[in-house]
Amino acid sequence: MNVISTRAMELVSKHKPTLEKAVEAANARGYWSLYPEHLKPYGETAKDDGMAAFKAHLGKPFEIDVPGASGTVGAEESPFGIEMGITYPKPDIDEVLKAAQAAMPDWRRAVPEVRASVCAEILERLNKRTPEMIFAVMHTTGQAFMMAFQAGGPHAQDRGLEAVTYGYMAMTQVPEGEVIWEKPQGKNPPLVMKKHWRVAPRGVAVTIGCSTFPTWNGYPGLFASLVTGNPVVVKPHPGAVLPLAITVKIAREVLAEAGFDPNLVTLAADDHNAPIAKELCTRPEVKVIDFTGSTAFGNWLEDNCRQAQVYTEKAGVNFVVIESTDDFKGMIRNMSFTLSLYTGQMCTTTQNIFVPKGGIETDQGHKSFDEVAEALAKGVEKFLSDDARAVEVLGAIQNPATAERIKEAEKMGQVILESRPIDHPYLKGARVHTPAMLVLEKDRAADYCKECFGPVSFVIACDDGADCIETAKRTVREHGAITAGLYSTSRDLVEQAEEACLDAQVALSVNLTGGVFVNQTAAFSDFHATGGNPAANAALVDLAFVANRFRFVGVREPA
Amino acid sequence: MNVISTRAMELVSKHKPTLEKAVEAANARGYWSLYPEHLKPYGETAKDDGMAAFKAHLGKPFEIDVPGASGTVGAEESPFGIEMGITYPKPDIDEVLKAAQAAMPDWRRAVPEVRASVCAEILERLNKRTPEMIFAVMHTTGQAFMMAFQAGGPHAQDRGLEAVTYGYMAMTQVPEGEVIWEKPQGKNPPLVMKKHWRVAPRGVAVTIGCSTFPTWNGYPGLFASLVTGNPVVVKPHPGAVLPLAITVKIAREVLAEAGFDPNLVTLAADDHNAPIAKELCTRPEVKVIDFTGSTAFGNWLEDNCRQAQVYTEKAGVNFVVIESTDDFKGMIRNMSFTLSLYTGQMCTTTQNIFVPKGGIETDQGHKSFDEVAEALAKGVEKFLSDDARAVEVLGAIQNPATAERIKEAEKMGQVILESRPIDHPYLKGARVHTPAMLVLEKDRAADYCKECFGPVSFVIACDDGADCIETAKRTVREHGAITAGLYSTSRDLVEQAEEACLDAQVALSVNLTGGVFVNQTAAFSDFHATGGNPAANAALVDLAFVANRFRFVGVREPA
Repeated sequence: MNVISTRAMELVSKHKPTLEKAVEAANARGYWSLYPEHLKPYGETAKDDGMAAFKAHLGKPFEIDVPGASGTVGAEESPFGIEMGITYPKPDIDEVLKAAQAAMPDWRRAVPEVRASVCAEILERLNKRTPEMIFAVMHTTGQAFMMAFQAGGPHAQDRGLEAVTYGYMAMTQVPEGEVIWEKPQGKNPPLVMKKHWRVAPRGVAVTIGCSTFPTWNGYPGLFASLVTGNPVVVKPHPGAVLPLAITVKIAREVLAEAGFDPNLVTLAADDHNAPIAKELCTRPEVKVIDFTGSTAFGNWLEDNCRQAQVYTEKAGVNFVVIESTDDFKGMIRNMSFTLSLYTGQMCTTTQNIFVPKGGIETDQGHKSFDEVAEALAKGVEKFLSDDARAVEVLGAIQNPATAERIKEAEKMGQVILESRPIDHPYLKGARVHTPAMLVLEKDRAADYCKECFGPVSFVIACDDGADCIETAKRTVREHGAITAGLYSTSRDLVEQAEEACLDAQVALSVNLTGGVFVNQTAAFSDFHATGGNPAANAALVDLAFVANRFRFVGVREPA
Repeated sequence: MNVISTRAMELVSKHKPTLEKAVEAANARGYWSLYPEHLKPYGETAKDDGMAAFKAHLGKPFEIDVPGASGTVGAEESPFGIEMGITYPKPDIDEVLKAAQAAMPDWRRAVPEVRASVCAEILERLNKRTPEMIFAVMHTTGQAFMMAFQAGGPHAQDRGLEAVTYGYMAMTQVPEGEVIWEKPQGKNPPLVMKKHWRVAPRGVAVTIGCSTFPTWNGYPGLFASLVTGNPVVVKPHPGAVLPLAITVKIAREVLAEAGFDPNLVTLAADDHNAPIAKELCTRPEVKVIDFTGSTAFGNWLEDNCRQAQVYTEKAGVNFVVIESTDDFKGMIRNMSFTLSLYTGQMCTTTQNIFVPKGGIETDQGHKSFDEVAEALAKGVEKFLSDDARAVEVLGAIQNPATAERIKEAEKMGQVILESRPIDHPYLKGARVHTPAMLVLEKDRAADYCKECFGPVSFVIACDDGADCIETAKRTVREHGAITAGLYSTSRDLVEQAEEACLDAQVALSVNLTGGVFVNQTAAFSDFHATGGNPAANAALVDLAFVANRFRFVGVREPA
């Protein structure tokens, strides 16, 4: 019954040490990463090879088998201004779902270790293709080279492996083999049963990609569903198809090599002319959905796809409270990077900066509210003063609407840092803008409680540190947040903030002045989002993210 | 900040070995039970003491502090016909929720081990009060003495401890103390952060009790929510308040002794004149709901309490397929007990018995379909032929509507076993009826695909064994089931059934002919329901049942 291919068994042996280390890391939560985040290990010519592989996709139909496909879709536009012209097979939803369902029984029959090992092999193969992925991510999301490499490659792969690991842990919480249950009956012979438990995947899973982090935000759901036995239909954002198309193609190759049906992972691409997400996600066959994107569509999925487990990451209003610091310079430097990175297009970028109206104590003496605000604005300005260096941090703006939003936002209050366009030195036509910063009154909650996606931040005066925390907490409880920061030299205030963050269920970073930033998290250590406020209903990656993607079916029989 | 009372620390030491054993048992899933299921350990005079303690409640207001209470509710009626006349304080929902919320921060601050130990102490105290609980359960649910003892006492306590154990496991998946995260930076000094994670409970939890198994079905949700830091409001079924009122009172005593706010567990009783469940469960403060009961109300909760994690156990159509057997007598005996126990009022009782129309092969030779049906009917009849013995298995019928339903059901098809009332030998006025059994045509799915709650079973002829399995699978996918059984001597058919049960996500019991019954599960070994078909959206108790009742909030700071 369990006919596992030789290749699959090889993968089990090959990835066993990795899985063991990964489980250890997930339980220890110190630093651990499997995939290198510096270029060297990818080869001397990695960059050129990656560029060449990427260019080979341009202006062509992407070759991939899609069940029932006829015609093409595809209208990606590079935020860096190059011509894309890639098309993808247009899927037939009926056929895709049928193929996915047909692929499931054999995959379900494979034990967790086999599925986890096949997933680890997919990730290893993805890791090898990182150089190509860099440019695929860059030219769909607008991320600058280094970020497209790290976040689109190894860090996304780490998150994928984390999902595999947690799925494996949750499935193996129950013994894989037969268990003898023996219940004493006093002087009578005991009752003896043999029992085993099978992992029953929920059914077809859908992963809906986002336009800014197609791999980083896509891999956790994809791999969590796949490792727990569900076939996965990948529906990329129409603006960022290529990174997930490459991913799906690699996954299919590895699955087929291991003796499984490649239709366990299928690509269902669409474009803005004929979106398919609603039709796909409301199908009764679909039992799991992972989504990253707008609050509006996330809520729609939660409301309308009640047949499925729906995991959403939506908008939020991330905050930092600046109450005091013993490293004013380090704080400004750290915040400047956070506010600039990828032009504030991270779901983790700080939007609201709460500062006591009476100013703050620092290692440079007292700073008034205005001085703090000005230092923040000047910090960003200075950090981005050199265009050539700036574009490597900012990248480009993914969506023209985001660029439009900056101008609108600048009408909201007192602008202390004006956004300016930058001509990219070597990618003409790139949509590059620097961040804007405004001072807003505390009573302008209607403005700062909306996510203003993109490079806009607000500095908001509150009564004092405690009021900063209370105000921030309220915004998060009502409108959500993925990240929270605090600068304070007072342990009491740190504790207050910690309690507030427990109430608001948001992770807290304290006194970041060095090389760790509030908008970055490390797989196997930091959770991304908590799942406990309106910004997301799940965390990447914890047991809750994986444990409900399958059910245990017990089988018992007298021994 | 973490001021834990001496008493709480004593409880940690006291229950540490239990927790360790429980975690081991949950991972091993062999036989393990902490609370004795025979009467002896409860004392020579347990039965009399229990009766006396129970009688002391009758005709009086139940003494318990309920925030903002004014007036009384209470209209329990014993299915065994005795006068109850117990009243309970009528809660003020605003005040109950306010008190629950106020109690949370200190409880949240206690580490998982403290909370788990306090919960274990509550369970130990409940165990000591088992004799009293027997009669409280008996005279609200109609369970006969032995079942009220085992299912209402130790087995319920086992399930409660299982919930505590899984909650503890899920919370401690992440280290409790500080973790140093050190990321190498090539030739530069490493990035070093200190991190810790706090368990952030969701908020106020509500446990809605059912009328048939108030403790067994109530404890998992109650303890899963409590151990993960949530205050719990217990809303018993109006017909079965006393068992949960006693439970809440004991929980409050233990919490107060350990230095915590007793309002972490509150009683919100109501009666049929003024039901409060809808108002309570739709309150925004309520973040977790556990419910056992009707499909209609379960669905209502799922649809209308979107602010909360909702765990429901609803109706289903449990089945047994009889395809062949090498112990015909044992099978009939086993099924007779299953169909009789507690007059079929278990959510796990078999309703649909699928048999090939051509009959089956047995150790007694070939049996035609009619012979099998007749043997089942005669088996039950014989098993219940002695009234004095019968009432100790049947108990009484909790709800008069269930008794009415029997007469209605008997009009549906060919009655092969007619239900008859029994005069209880020593509890006059007890509502005792024996089960009915009918033969239904396979095309009468409209009848057998509805749960006919109570002592009615249908024997249904299918083409052959495979058709039995396919038909049963379809009923479960569409209408849900908590239990499935198969009698077959063919390993191929057992495998077919196993695959079908994976599709339908229902646990399977094979060839039960001895002292284990399809409608009984053992904590720490068998899951109750899978959470994967319409009968329930959660299993008792797995990681999925606990992991989303809290969120992890990470706090990180440069080391």
